[in-house]
Amino acid sequence: MAGNSFGNLFQLTTFGESHGPAIGGIIDGCPAGISLDFSAIQKDLKRRRPGQSKIVTARNEEDQVIWLSGIFNGITTGTPIGFQILNNDQKSKDYHHIASVYRPSHADMTYEKKYGIRDYRGGGRSSARETACRVVAGAIAKQICPEISFKAFTSAVGEIELDKPYEQLDFNLIESNDVRCPDAAVAKKMISRIKEIKKNGDTVGGVVSGIISNVPAGLGEPVFQKLHAELGKAMLSINAVKGFEFGSGFAGTKMLGSTHNDQFRPDGSTTTNYSGGIQGGISNGMDIHFKVAFKPVATIMKAQETIDQEGKTISMHGKGRHDPCVVPRAVPIVEAMAALVIADFYLMQHIYQSSTQFKYEKGVN
Amino acid sequence: MAGNSFGNLFQLTTFGESHGPAIGGIIDGCPAGISLDFSAIQKDLKRRRPGQSKIVTARNEEDQVIWLSGIFNGITTGTPIGFQILNNDQKSKDYHHIASVYRPSHADMTYEKKYGIRDYRGGGRSSARETACRVVAGAIAKQICPEISFKAFTSAVGEIELDKPYEQLDFNLIESNDVRCPDAAVAKKMISRIKEIKKNGDTVGGVVSGIISNVPAGLGEPVFQKLHAELGKAMLSINAVKGFEFGSGFAGTKMLGSTHNDQFRPDGSTTTNYSGGIQGGISNGMDIHFKVAFKPVATIMKAQETIDQEGKTISMHGKGRHDPCVVPRAVPIVEAMAALVIADFYLMQHIYQSSTQFKYEKGVN
Amino acid sequence: MAGNSFGNLFQLTTFGESHGPAIGGIIDGCPAGISLDFSAIQKDLKRRRPGQSKIVTARNEEDQVIWLSGIFNGITTGTPIGFQILNNDQKSKDYHHIASVYRPSHADMTYEKKYGIRDYRGGGRSSARETACRVVAGAIAKQICPEISFKAFTSAVGEIELDKPYEQLDFNLIESNDVRCPDAAVAKKMISRIKEIKKNGDTVGGVVSGIISNVPAGLGEPVFQKLHAELGKAMLSINAVKGFEFGSGFAGTKMLGSTHNDQFRPDGSTTTNYSGGIQGGISNGMDIHFKVAFKPVATIMKAQETIDQEGKTISMHGKGRHDPCVVPRAVPIVEAMAALVIADFYLMQHIYQSSTQFKYEKGVN
Amino acid sequence: MAGNSFGNLFQLTTFGESHGPAIGGIIDGCPAGISLDFSAIQKDLKRRRPGQSKIVTARNEEDQVIWLSGIFNGITTGTPIGFQILNNDQKSKDYHHIASVYRPSHADMTYEKKYGIRDYRGGGRSSARETACRVVAGAIAKQICPEISFKAFTSAVGEIELDKPYEQLDFNLIESNDVRCPDAAVAKKMISRIKEIKKNGDTVGGVVSGIISNVPAGLGEPVFQKLHAELGKAMLSINAVKGFEFGSGFAGTKMLGSTHNDQFRPDGSTTTNYSGGIQGGISNGMDIHFKVAFKPVATIMKAQETIDQEGKTISMHGKGRHDPCVVPRAVPIVEAMAALVIADFYLMQHIYQSSTQFKYEKGVN
Repeated sequence: MAGNSFGNLFQLTTFGESHGPAIGGIIDGCPAGISLDFSAIQKDLKRRRPGQSKIVTARNEEDQVIWLSGIFNGITTGTPIGFQILNNDQKSKDYHHIASVYRPSHADMTYEKKYGIRDYRGGGRSSARETACRVVAGAIAKQICPEISFKAFTSAVGEIELDKPYEQLDFNLIESNDVRCPDAAVAKKMISRIKEIKKNGDTVGGVVSGIISNVPAGLGEPVFQKLHAELGKAMLSINAVKGFEFGSGFAGTKMLGSTHNDQFRPDGSTTTNYSGGIQGGISNGMDIHFKVAFKPVATIMKAQETIDQEGKTISMHGKGRHDPCVVPRAVPIVEAMAALVIADFYLMQHIYQSSTQFKYEKGVN
Repeated sequence: MAGNSFGNLFQLTTFGESHGPAIGGIIDGCPAGISLDFSAIQKDLKRRRPGQSKIVTARNEEDQVIWLSGIFNGITTGTPIGFQILNNDQKSKDYHHIASVYRPSHADMTYEKKYGIRDYRGGGRSSARETACRVVAGAIAKQICPEISFKAFTSAVGEIELDKPYEQLDFNLIESNDVRCPDAAVAKKMISRIKEIKKNGDTVGGVVSGIISNVPAGLGEPVFQKLHAELGKAMLSINAVKGFEFGSGFAGTKMLGSTHNDQFRPDGSTTTNYSGGIQGGISNGMDIHFKVAFKPVATIMKAQETIDQEGKTISMHGKGRHDPCVVPRAVPIVEAMAALVIADFYLMQHIYQSSTQFKYEKGVN
Repeated sequence: MAGNSFGNLFQLTTFGESHGPAIGGIIDGCPAGISLDFSAIQKDLKRRRPGQSKIVTARNEEDQVIWLSGIFNGITTGTPIGFQILNNDQKSKDYHHIASVYRPSHADMTYEKKYGIRDYRGGGRSSARETACRVVAGAIAKQICPEISFKAFTSAVGEIELDKPYEQLDFNLIESNDVRCPDAAVAKKMISRIKEIKKNGDTVGGVVSGIISNVPAGLGEPVFQKLHAELGKAMLSINAVKGFEFGSGFAGTKMLGSTHNDQFRPDGSTTTNYSGGIQGGISNGMDIHFKVAFKPVATIMKAQETIDQEGKTISMHGKGRHDPCVVPRAVPIVEAMAALVIADFYLMQHIYQSSTQFKYEKGVN
Repeated sequence: MAGNSFGNLFQLTTFGESHGPAIGGIIDGCPAGISLDFSAIQKDLKRRRPGQSKIVTARNEEDQVIWLSGIFNGITTGTPIGFQILNNDQKSKDYHHIASVYRPSHADMTYEKKYGIRDYRGGGRSSARETACRVVAGAIAKQICPEISFKAFTSAVGEIELDKPYEQLDFNLIESNDVRCPDAAVAKKMISRIKEIKKNGDTVGGVVSGIISNVPAGLGEPVFQKLHAELGKAMLSINAVKGFEFGSGFAGTKMLGSTHNDQFRPDGSTTTNYSGGIQGGISNGMDIHFKVAFKPVATIMKAQETIDQEGKTISMHGKGRHDPCVVPRAVPIVEAMAALVIADFYLMQHIYQSSTQFKYEKGVN
């Protein structure tokens, strides 16, 4: 209700500020009996980690998860999974210079307007550091439905776009370069562009594409919790996101129905997939594909004019360690949020098909 | 949880199929003491109503709300508002020809996969007829925060786009034409295009823009219930929507941070508004502006190949009464969903600012 | 959130005042494919109906459910079930004499304090007429888990108690008398006592016992949604309820652990059942048994002093048609609320056992 | 949903097992700007702490809260408050002897039936150690509504009852003795009885009474979230609770309406308070008073027969460190749960009175 929980049956609640002692969360509703692959969780965290390459922030965090409950001998027990990640390299002093300043296009002013109080340490709760907890929970969510594949990659950095259909890409290449674009040539251009922008003290936006494959038909809860509506909310809740589209997206608005309609094959699959794997808010078994728009990071290493708490105009210059382009590190976050949405519906779908399926162990005789 | 409720503090739950006796809903959490303007509610419904013009479906529904509870002498009592709208012109027989057919890009197959049962009457629950209930609730939501203005309009039909900045438009013109575009020349082109497409038995997509003005700063509940995340979910839950963007949206991904950052004026307003009125998931007092992408309606009056429940390929031809372009009728729905989101956060914001504000009537002494 | 919804996966939301045109509700989350037994629903309503015997209120309502959605050819479709019950015999004029009076131990004053408005028609929303909707939903809930038996009966009227262990009772006798006590001799005393009290214009309280049998082990969601905690909430939400106990209840506080512990038999059942079928908030397969305390109805046909809205002391005398003892009509309501709780956990339990059970139809290849 | 969250606007989510590294929780929705009194929180924890006196378990835990987020310079920021408490004295080896045994009237078997897995360390999640987190959150909840007083005390240990009306008690005496009974003579008897029972290796139940004073009128959300229904759920969710009653409770079932009705004074207060401060599910400003029944602790230091996982009968003898009577330590837990319920409704009440009260800072012009 106050906004720090996500999901219904598989629910993540998070806490933590960028510059407090730790961030963390509680996963409630994880089914019992799952033998967790901890290295897979840590691997996803590493992909999100600051300091991982030359095109991301230099803040250095190990991001090692400390597990506190809900797991016994490596297996989930069905009780809440509590976890935390320490903030080792927080350097609070970095932020004293902005304690009374509202940084442009940051959440400084809105948080203060909302709560009447200012936690100026690194943006406090509004920092994207919080997304590490999403990655932890998402990595567990993936393990609930291991047959489903979650893939995200960078499909645009500024004006440099990867314009091939995703079916023609080799997803094995995603992790082969720092920008996480599964096309070596385009990746090279993107990296070079980010380096150039970084050198100028500026930042740039980009697009992450997501593909969810091998999804069972039937996931999604119309009319308000349509699969793509929850997916959209999930993506829009990630820091710096400005837009979400799935299937034909905004381009689909220009098409005619006779072209846009996905024709069925006899097996129920479709020859095209403008629907993006979802019809009427429910998965149809085809790939779910979507795009997420990220704005340029607001912290730039250039002089800017802004105001302080008294409304006085002042000049400021970014300090601290920031990403010139958030997109490469956003890739695992997009995957994680997709997994949280799908795992939740996956569990939910268990329930509503037919009463005839309810076969429990009967009461004691 | 099963998906037919929207909102937290101001919550709408709906029921009803396209071809049952009635649709309706329950609004729980409407504050007491509001003297309802029933004509404003009916006016919004009329804007969504089928049969309102030559470019929409010919189905004829009066859509007169029947109020059942929660209102006494025209004033809300704080108890749940039950309401219903009769389906007068449902013509169930129209649909017998599709009882065993899966229409392309409809929800026929996914509903059946999900629930194991097929309600073939006009798409059943997946019909956009359900959105009439949203308009009712949205019209009440608007009356909770009357100082806030909710405006939506058609900004694209197929490739015909209205490309002026919204600040230059005269919103008084929105209702002056059948397509709800506040530019007479562009509206004319759009109408003509829709008529042409209709004549061909085809359909086309489009874009609805939304502007929410005079929003108090502080609305939104990070980190998961960010204002734009809930707004996006709300819009994506409307039938036929394929995408949502706010502020700079997808175009913003191509910008540099130094350009994209909205500079503050001394009064806290900003000179540009790429943020779309929201920073860190919280409203900042500037206009909230966003775009919603609608696909072309799937029912076309042309022959198409499809499959039946046995997977046999058959040819089908649309019957019934359908919209060649859903966008004009979607305008009030977009407004309604925006109002539902804002009213909910508006009520919520009352709570979390500072404990010092809590001054209640004390207990009996 | 605003209090008119109950349940999570199987969720009932209700609306309606005692003297409005209708009451009704929406059931969201009812599994698809259930062939509803409508006569069973109507039968439960009839047991709750006013005017059914000489020891209940003379208000005459048919309480015939009007189904509006979610059912196709008698089978649930998985979409929300909308329903309503007309208020035929509401006689609003009966209440004009109390429009400005606060009746003692009614909700008149608290509703006005809460909402700042007074709907004086028959208590408005606070009337127990609202519970008819619970009976409808409860009767459907029972059909979701038909192997489970829900039985409630009158175990006390004022000081007349049925003091046999429930295992020695013949539940077939519950409906054989007007007071719903499965012991003819005690029932006779109870009825005679109620008639005597009615004659004096007074009212009396009582106790309803509930027994849920053949419950699968494993239902309940610790630590906050323990099975008995939700059951208690459900019962306490019924009008006029003042207490709830299960298993050994308040008497158990006087026992020693060595006596109170339920010893296991080799098959996992227990020789005693002080636990009331629940250990650690989770059903263990034994009968769940509990008691619900009902206060005497506040409306009496005797002169009483009270105050009006100005705080002026006035004398009032009950009018209208009221129950001298609410307990006989509460029996089906207790059953209904028990069924709502159990059905919800029953659906929920489907999810959390082990990930190995998740075998879905795979996506299209 | 999976049961480890409590509350709506002020929401506590907890994690942690008795014998894991730590327990803890996240409080979401705490209003910003509260200058926390940490010593008050620690003081409540100390009242719940094991090892505090000779009549409770000898397990020795400091129960020092480690704050992780949501607080800046001692003031709440409106963001989630993460906290944890280390398990220092867990001694997991104490429990190896019961790894395959189902202890009578414990949750061993039901947890295993539910989750298909056994965490045998000290009862795992089902241990009352979890309630320490409730005390932390409750102590903060009290600070949200400082004008309201929450008092609980021991009113019965086995058959020894404190039978004075609570108005005649001196609450300052509650903490003056180990059993937390505000009557020195009765307390002495209770303590002596507990010591005697402990010596015998046995345990005994008891009753905790709760009084909430100076409550504003208007709290509670009918019809399902009635104030006493949520209060009852809150109490029933505490380990070992078997019953809840408020106001006249079970005794009220034997009264006549003419006696039971609480007569109004001109100022709206009532001369009696059988209603227990709640009418129609909404507080009326009078004291809310209630009783909570606790069963005898299941772990006894005597030989008992029970079964193991194969259903084989075996004899077992309690080991470890346990309470002979849980009631003295339950007193602060009852207060904490009461505070959680009241704080939630207190925040909620802010919203629903009248639209006229909504006066926000307007958007930027």
